[in-house]
Amino acid sequence: MYAQITQFKKMLHTLSRLLDKAQQHAEANNFEPEVLLNSRLSPDMLPLTNQVQMACDTAVLATAVLTGEQATGFEDTEKTIPELKARIEKTIGYVASMKEGDFAGWEERIVAPKGWAGALLGKDYFCQHAVPNFYFHMVTAYAILRHKDVRIGKMDYIGQLPFLR
Amino acid sequence: MYAQITQFKKMLHTLSRLLDKAQQHAEANNFEPEVLLNSRLSPDMLPLTNQVQMACDTAVLATAVLTGEQATGFEDTEKTIPELKARIEKTIGYVASMKEGDFAGWEERIVAPKGWAGALLGKDYFCQHAVPNFYFHMVTAYAILRHKDVRIGKMDYIGQLPFLR
Repeated sequence: MYAQITQFKKMLHTLSRLLDKAQQHAEANNFEPEVLLNSRLSPDMLPLTNQVQMACDTAVLATAVLTGEQATGFEDTEKTIPELKARIEKTIGYVASMKEGDFAGWEERIVAPKGWAGALLGKDYFCQHAVPNFYFHMVTAYAILRHKDVRIGKMDYIGQLPFLR
Repeated sequence: MYAQITQFKKMLHTLSRLLDKAQQHAEANNFEPEVLLNSRLSPDMLPLTNQVQMACDTAVLATAVLTGEQATGFEDTEKTIPELKARIEKTIGYVASMKEGDFAGWEERIVAPKGWAGALLGKDYFCQHAVPNFYFHMVTAYAILRHKDVRIGKMDYIGQLPFLR
């Protein structure tokens, strides 16, 4: 499970690089990068800015509740790509602040985030909510950029793999 | 890790239900459901049919290589929603055919799928490829339907959670 938390950090670095590509695409095509941040796949879906914020929030919440910390999270104030990249950096820093041992007993922890309909066992929360929700916002962010013609591909999303040979 | 394999099955059931909603949406709006199956988020992205097939393939491959089986997979012949739902059912059946014990030693297995650039340790393959790739195709399928106005929301994607109280 700690490997999945480590993977959240890897994906957040990936998300930051996708935002770099968004910035470059906007500059190369002479439009404001904020146009991409305000883009959505459907009028009643949240735009890119929120998708990035919610991927960050999901990683923070999982790290906090599964280590027995209070999840305070970060305020949603970002309006630019550099600000969103800073949010991602803060998120990675928080996730990285917890060592594997801090997650001891995570499977049996009772997890009851504020505003939720009830409590979940840590193992159910992590597998059935944290992981699918993290990837939901991660892939939706990718999909918005892809839909808006930013030149990214699946390997930008998967990232480097530690091949043995 | 076996909990994540179990979660693949849950998400595949979810994907099947999303296809039901697609079918209903097409019928209610008097168009052929195949229009949705051929929809894409960008001209050089794969359409919904392929996203469903690839989510299935990822679950089959992970189950096979981490239990030391040969991944034979299924042929990509589906042209309709009922056919894709049957593909999902076959995939769930294959994943369910493996018990937790069959995955013993998965972290240290050497995984070298056909056509890949190299070999990976099972733990790296699973966390850094299988899980992100599965959700990539799962969320992209959702995003295509959402983009095409099928009335689905995040809770259709997350599904039921096993609340304690």
